[in-house]
Amino acid sequence: MDEFMKAAIAEARQGLEEGGVPIGSVLVHQGRIIGRGHNQRQQRGSVVLHGEMDALENAGRQPASVYRDSVLYTTLSPCPMCSGAILLYGIPRVVIGENRTFMGAEDNLRQHGITLEVLDSIECRELMNTFIARHPDVWNEDIGE
Amino acid sequence: MDEFMKAAIAEARQGLEEGGVPIGSVLVHQGRIIGRGHNQRQQRGSVVLHGEMDALENAGRQPASVYRDSVLYTTLSPCPMCSGAILLYGIPRVVIGENRTFMGAEDNLRQHGITLEVLDSIECRELMNTFIARHPDVWNEDIGE
Repeated sequence: MDEFMKAAIAEARQGLEEGGVPIGSVLVHQGRIIGRGHNQRQQRGSVVLHGEMDALENAGRQPASVYRDSVLYTTLSPCPMCSGAILLYGIPRVVIGENRTFMGAEDNLRQHGITLEVLDSIECRELMNTFIARHPDVWNEDIGE
Repeated sequence: MDEFMKAAIAEARQGLEEGGVPIGSVLVHQGRIIGRGHNQRQQRGSVVLHGEMDALENAGRQPASVYRDSVLYTTLSPCPMCSGAILLYGIPRVVIGENRTFMGAEDNLRQHGITLEVLDSIECRELMNTFIARHPDVWNEDIGE
């Protein structure tokens, strides 16, 4: 597996160890990770820091030219909020660990010309399935259900 | 003007006084403000805390039932990221100060059945026009341009 998806999974595992929703993400610019993060609902009580948002936040302020030459890796299909952030900043390509446990706003991303690559990773699916079975309430809250 | 839009404008003005992008927002549940915030790019170096996101974050973790019975007030048309957050949490109604200085993802919101009310407030427009004229670089960064 790609080293960047491995790094996103490592973020998801760190989140799980912290008692959080196991979704991780890294932002890669020209072959280098410039931001990494994981869902912070349980850890920081955040409703906006999904994995992808945490990676973007940790990358710090960047000019548009950086985002437009970057790839976002995420262990789970990006929800409407995270997809909106991808569109806002014009990130042209997203690599997704899996989209079976949750289907995000992939149609909206494709309609706007974003290239998506879905790996259908068993490892990513197992992380989510385990967490959802143990904490369905937290998971439902995280996706507004 | 509605007391809630006044509160959102007060947040935008506070942001301006702090040297930040003057966009404010409040989340109102059953006639009571449960979260208020303003853009935090300059103040906290945040790339995810637009005004609406800051209001949602400051409202803290809420069950879906609260979001679905809430109204979001924002001084400026919500960008794709903030619109995505509105969709994620199922906030059914958004009151927008103005959409002339920036048109957000209003089409996407309407397509998903969200009710939008645009006030076309001169006060909101003047806040943005003044800031954009003084700090075009910060503004462009904030909208990924």
